[in-house]
Amino acid sequence: MVPFVSENLFKLSPVIYEPFLIEKAMWDLVARAKPRYNPPTPSMTEDLIIDLHSDSHFMQQAMREAHKAYAAGEVPVGAVVVHEGRVIGRAWNQVETLKDATAHAEMLALTAAQQTLGDWRLEKCTLFVTKEPCPMCAGAIVHCRPDRVVFGCGDPKSGAAGGWINLLEANPPLNHRCDVTAGVMGEESLALLQSFFREARQRKKMQDS
Amino acid sequence: MVPFVSENLFKLSPVIYEPFLIEKAMWDLVARAKPRYNPPTPSMTEDLIIDLHSDSHFMQQAMREAHKAYAAGEVPVGAVVVHEGRVIGRAWNQVETLKDATAHAEMLALTAAQQTLGDWRLEKCTLFVTKEPCPMCAGAIVHCRPDRVVFGCGDPKSGAAGGWINLLEANPPLNHRCDVTAGVMGEESLALLQSFFREARQRKKMQDS
Repeated sequence: MVPFVSENLFKLSPVIYEPFLIEKAMWDLVARAKPRYNPPTPSMTEDLIIDLHSDSHFMQQAMREAHKAYAAGEVPVGAVVVHEGRVIGRAWNQVETLKDATAHAEMLALTAAQQTLGDWRLEKCTLFVTKEPCPMCAGAIVHCRPDRVVFGCGDPKSGAAGGWINLLEANPPLNHRCDVTAGVMGEESLALLQSFFREARQRKKMQDS
Repeated sequence: MVPFVSENLFKLSPVIYEPFLIEKAMWDLVARAKPRYNPPTPSMTEDLIIDLHSDSHFMQQAMREAHKAYAAGEVPVGAVVVHEGRVIGRAWNQVETLKDATAHAEMLALTAAQQTLGDWRLEKCTLFVTKEPCPMCAGAIVHCRPDRVVFGCGDPKSGAAGGWINLLEANPPLNHRCDVTAGVMGEESLALLQSFFREARQRKKMQDS
């Protein structure tokens, strides 16, 4: 930004004028300079480059959905469905908001993706979800047939992608098998869930006392 | 209903008046009669009595939903949710109609019931479904917490209420356990499904040849 300096102000006094003139010339130089800054060399920013097709990039988008759930007082789980590098469905867990126990992030994201494609077959799609799917969601995934499922933290108690049972790779007898990648941004996702349940316990403790 | 007959009309002519008077007196008698008809003796109608709170009565309603699915070219499965003797949600399988692979009869009936109650907890509810629930639907049932599930024909290949796995009675590790009754109108339901798939195979054969 070139700061706006009134020419009239410069005419008032040469003592005032000179520093402004120097600054104006400097800003003009900056404004005209192409490129305005030297592009960073790869060695400088190797860790900063964002691969727009990486699992962690899409999982970050799912995490953003999880944070929306957290802000709404819902169990913080988020999901996105990606088709050929493009997000075609995104959702956060809305059980309490919609008063619907089936409104898990995965279910809503799958339904949104089906609407986008105009087909219930989610071929060439990948579902990214911040937590291992439950049996309901894993069953839904098998019905919708995405190629891959990538999830964050595992659920050893009742997860249905290998934690407790594995419905995603149970073909036969089920009609579809997904490639599964576990643990992408798993620690961040687990930390968010733990924080949510810690706060919920504290709230309950305060209400009871 | 006592038909309304104007008194003025009666005064016009005794010829007109008399038949109306007789009819009026007859209707008055019918209206006052308690009971209005003799209750049938058990021996007369033993097979005709419909118990409005029996499993087969509600399963018949679920079968009616399954026939709607059949008529729409969908896999014929129907479901109703009953709360204290009243149907609060009913649906038929609409995967192709809604282009949504998660739109099974059970899922839609559960969501409808939740909307009716204004709560995702379906306490004191029974789900009637014409076919054994799949893993997705069984997982959803566990989340919604109805007391009972009654189903028609079993699905030994991929059913999740005992046919292949049993999610409805898997507490722990899941958070809820349902009482399960299997085989109510199972033969009728199986016959409808077999008829649907036989016709689908014949259609495919004709298209291929």
